Amino acid sequence: MVGVSDNIRGFVLAISSSVFIGSSFIIKKKGLKRAGAAGTRASEGGYAYLKEPWWWAGMITMILGEGLNFAAYAYAPAILVTPLGALSIIFSAILAHFILEERLHMFGVVGCILCLFGSVTIVLHAPLERDIESVKQVWHLATEPVFIVYTLVVLVVVVVLVVFYVPRYGQSHMVVYIGICSLMGSLTVMGVKAVAIALKLSFSGSNQFIYFETWFFTILVIAFCFMQMIYLNKALDIFNTAVVSPVYYVMFTTLTIVASMIMFQEWHSQTTTQIVSEFCGFVTILCGTFLLHKTKDMGGSPTMATPLYHRSRDSSPREVEP
Amino acid sequence: MVGVSDNIRGFVLAISSSVFIGSSFIIKKKGLKRAGAAGTRASEGGYAYLKEPWWWAGMITMILGEGLNFAAYAYAPAILVTPLGALSIIFSAILAHFILEERLHMFGVVGCILCLFGSVTIVLHAPLERDIESVKQVWHLATEPVFIVYTLVVLVVVVVLVVFYVPRYGQSHMVVYIGICSLMGSLTVMGVKAVAIALKLSFSGSNQFIYFETWFFTILVIAFCFMQMIYLNKALDIFNTAVVSPVYYVMFTTLTIVASMIMFQEWHSQTTTQIVSEFCGFVTILCGTFLLHKTKDMGGSPTMATPLYHRSRDSSPREVEP
Repeated sequence: MVGVSDNIRGFVLAISSSVFIGSSFIIKKKGLKRAGAAGTRASEGGYAYLKEPWWWAGMITMILGEGLNFAAYAYAPAILVTPLGALSIIFSAILAHFILEERLHMFGVVGCILCLFGSVTIVLHAPLERDIESVKQVWHLATEPVFIVYTLVVLVVVVVLVVFYVPRYGQSHMVVYIGICSLMGSLTVMGVKAVAIALKLSFSGSNQFIYFETWFFTILVIAFCFMQMIYLNKALDIFNTAVVSPVYYVMFTTLTIVASMIMFQEWHSQTTTQIVSEFCGFVTILCGTFLLHKTKDMGGSPTMATPLYHRSRDSSPREVEP
Repeated sequence: MVGVSDNIRGFVLAISSSVFIGSSFIIKKKGLKRAGAAGTRASEGGYAYLKEPWWWAGMITMILGEGLNFAAYAYAPAILVTPLGALSIIFSAILAHFILEERLHMFGVVGCILCLFGSVTIVLHAPLERDIESVKQVWHLATEPVFIVYTLVVLVVVVVLVVFYVPRYGQSHMVVYIGICSLMGSLTVMGVKAVAIALKLSFSGSNQFIYFETWFFTILVIAFCFMQMIYLNKALDIFNTAVVSPVYYVMFTTLTIVASMIMFQEWHSQTTTQIVSEFCGFVTILCGTFLLHKTKDMGGSPTMATPLYHRSRDSSPREVEP
């Protein structure tokens, strides 16, 4: 049992994590805008943002926020930490409104709220994860046929998205870039677990970096993190922060739960009520994402507003940048 | 344990109940439109619909549907019957589209879906109801101080709505009429339980109609049913069927669960996960209702479209009747 003071510590950690993660999107976007004004934009393949202190400040804020979130789970139960963590969606929408002066359509606000509550429903009914104790164990779980199939499906979908969909729909449909990030992210989280255990064991004297599995996971995590960073920057450069952050949050959360369920094969421990609740949460998220997508303001250059959005009565394309 | 064939029987009963209840709204609306064309409209205090066979056909369809729904719960578990019962929302929206040619805004469709999945989430996590075995038991539960407080609050709110809000907002805000129906409905359901038991016991030889409690509940049910019928007709006369039926379903379901929880005082048996899930379902429903309200097409005479809806970019007032 955790004490009340532990709950309060977890509460404070979770809230701070939401503030950090929520504001990291805003700071990064500021960096991307400044970098775009000076050189080639991230969405057009530029990497000028790497010279932008604002962008780096955003990166560091995000890493700090993720760390605080991780720490919060150590103190307070998931039922308290998860909803508070999902508040980052609301924080980034509020900050985007005041700092970046992005205007969200009223139905976009409803979309944000739906994403928040849909994710909470899903996470609450997701199966508990088993604890992992060694790198070998992760390797064993990751090489089970069903997880290999999941990995292959993810990689094929990512390649198809990058090769066929990015050139055609990348600038108009945010699900393309955010989908790439979230799919890679679901595999990265599994790799991060292995690396975290490897580091813990190595620091306590039993060096894990003599095994090739440890190096495999380390390289995988680094490579996948880079890819996610590049595509998240592209998405953030084109679309409104208040739209990107909830969609990224829900896709990432959902796919991580799916990957985790497949890896630990824990779907048979699920009751019907849990499965139906998860499905309800998922539909809620889909509706929220749909509202956000349909009402999203288009940032970036005017050419990026495709005819689809001009036709739609409910989208209100507005230019964020001059 | 129930067998597979019982599940199938429950499934068929629940689906038929949804079809009956879903279509009852359409048939009633057809009756109301014909009655409105001939005499004073229901929304303006007319009762011409009582002479309209279509309206009576709608009433009978609804009673049959409720009966089938009740029977479905006897065969299959609630987890199967509840989502199928909530499908009536979708059936009435589809029928309204094709038969009454009501056009629902794309976001109104999202609102319907949200109402459906939000109610399923709430009902799944609602506490199980205790079985009731005698009229005296209902009377005992209904006269507990906390339920008396609930009853008084409901009655005061209904009176305030009828006296102050109906004249001013009744024609523009559907929550006024539907709120009255749902609040009365939550008390009616408790009364129906007492009457059902009284009838069952009386038929099996032990006459319950010698107790004044039985008569009290019988008169209450009849009076409250009449009031609900009158206000539901007013709502249905003014607003689109595809908008009234989901909002009525969710308000009625939510308030009945609240009344039942208060009567049986079963909130302390609830786990935190259940309470948080119910809250998520409730917010989902609120968002769905908000979308439906904001995008609802205004039927009836043009004067009913208040400036609020003309100002809103997202409502699309269209005339249903010529």
